[in-house]
Order: sequence, then structure tokens, then C-alpha cells
Amino acid sequence: MFNKITRAVPNLFTMGNLLCGVLSITSNMSGFMEVASVLIFISAFFDLLDGRVARSLKVNSEFGVQLDSLADIVSFGVAPALIFHSLASPSILTSLAFILFPIMGALRLARFNVKPTIGYFSGLPIPAAGLPLAGMGFFLYSNAWITLILAFLMVSPIRVKKL
Amino acid sequence: MFNKITRAVPNLFTMGNLLCGVLSITSNMSGFMEVASVLIFISAFFDLLDGRVARSLKVNSEFGVQLDSLADIVSFGVAPALIFHSLASPSILTSLAFILFPIMGALRLARFNVKPTIGYFSGLPIPAAGLPLAGMGFFLYSNAWITLILAFLMVSPIRVKKL
Repeated sequence: MFNKITRAVPNLFTMGNLLCGVLSITSNMSGFMEVASVLIFISAFFDLLDGRVARSLKVNSEFGVQLDSLADIVSFGVAPALIFHSLASPSILTSLAFILFPIMGALRLARFNVKPTIGYFSGLPIPAAGLPLAGMGFFLYSNAWITLILAFLMVSPIRVKKL
Repeated sequence: MFNKITRAVPNLFTMGNLLCGVLSITSNMSGFMEVASVLIFISAFFDLLDGRVARSLKVNSEFGVQLDSLADIVSFGVAPALIFHSLASPSILTSLAFILFPIMGALRLARFNVKPTIGYFSGLPIPAAGLPLAGMGFFLYSNAWITLILAFLMVSPIRVKKL
């Protein structure tokens, strides 16, 4: 029983990550862009914690990895792209950036789950792409080129050291 | 080269699924609830196709399975919950239903990826939970109890025959 509760702890953090991502979208829908942005940073805090807690409690699991990716696509793929979409003036370039950001994020996450890398990440991790968009959103700023570059960095072969 | 293109085809359908899910959210944000609902049905069409195309081309891949789940959490977890959220009158019950729906959806998807079942699904598949919400949304109807029941059916041990 105690073991079962311990195993659930990191997944509760992951659910916190997903919940903040969903609430970021509803805050955005209500026009509270700053709240929407801050919620993505809280998601990142939960995301940082879940893996560390799992490792320290020695309850890493494949289930946890899967759940983590599902939370990440919402909190760092879709939610930041929606903040960008709400702030950017409509144009072909901004539409393209808005569409490509979550798609590249999903490709990045799927690739990592199939071929995990040890000690480094191949391609910019999705939180490292979503957080700058959220940060810009906090100051009600949007930039289609930065969004496009972050999207492509996720599927690029660059190596990023793990935190 | 030809082989590489063939392998990418089912993933293009999955990206179509994800794209329709994201566009459903932006349609919802603009107040076009019917369009938001129809886009979830188009996502389901892509979702039905990607697996069939992969099997018929014999290019099933673990990468495709991962990408599929990432698209599904957006199109059938988050987007239908947001339609419900936009239509329902605010209350503790509707907030609970809105929060639990995507979380249960993510738990369902993570469980399936870790322990795939053959010939049947354990728990209601996420598109079968998201589509009724989208269908109700098309008629501008929302029901917190139905949303809660669909959420819990996803993580329930009921067996559902595969289509």
C-alpha cells in the first residue's frame, strides 16, 4: 500500500503539469495572458520535479515517461502556441509558426520516447521551446520568427546537455 | 527514398489529427463552437485512417504509436474538455468534470502505451470519450455528469472491442 502511494507521487506532479497547461489555455481564452504565461512556468516547475522525485524515490517507470510526454505536449507545445496565436497579428507567417510549433513539439517528444538519449538531448527539449514563448507572452510580446526557430530547433540534431 | 516517403504517410495523417485538435481550440476561442466540434470529428477521421494506412502499408512503428497518443490527448482530451468548459455554467461540478476529463484521458493513453492490449481495449478509448463531448458541443449542449462518466470510463477496467 505504502509502496503504491510512493509510486504515484511523481505522477501527481505530472498531472499538476498537465492541469496547469489546461488552465493556461482557459486563462488565455478569458484574456488573462499574464496568468496563462505564469501557469506554463508552474507546469515547468512540476515537470522538473516529477523526474527528480521519481529518481530520488527510485520509482521511475515507463508509465511515468508516457504520462510526462502527454502533459508536455499540452503545457509546452499547445498552450504556448495558443499564447503566441492570441498575441500575434494574423498573417501567413504567424499561422505557419502557430501550426508548426505544436507539430514539431510532438515529433520531438515521440522521437525521444522511441530513442531516449542518455546525458544529453537530441534537439531542443520541448519545455526549453515553450518557456521562451510563455516568457514573451507575459510581456504581451510575440515574434513569429523566434517561434519558427524554436519549433525547428526541437527537431534539429543539435545536442543539449541534460539539466 | 520511396520507402522513407511510404513510412511517413501514416504520420502525416496523425499530424492532421493534431492540427485539427489545435484548430478546434482556436475555433472555440473565437466562439465558433460548431466548427470546433466538427474539427474534432475530422481529427477522429484522421485517427481512424493513420492506423489502417500504417497496417496496409506495413509501416507500423513505435514512433507512430507515440505520435498518435500525443495527437489524441490534444484532439480528444483537451479540445473536447474546452468545448465543454466554454458551454457549461461555472460550478464546482463542471470545474471538476473539466479538470478530470483530460487527466483521465492522459492516464488512459499512458496505460495503453505501457501495456497494449490485443483485440480489445481496456477502458473506453479516448476518441470514444471525446467524440460524444464534441457531438454535444455541436448542439451547444453540455452535461457535467456525462463528462464525468466518460472521464471515469476511460480509466475503468471495462473491455471494449477494437474497431
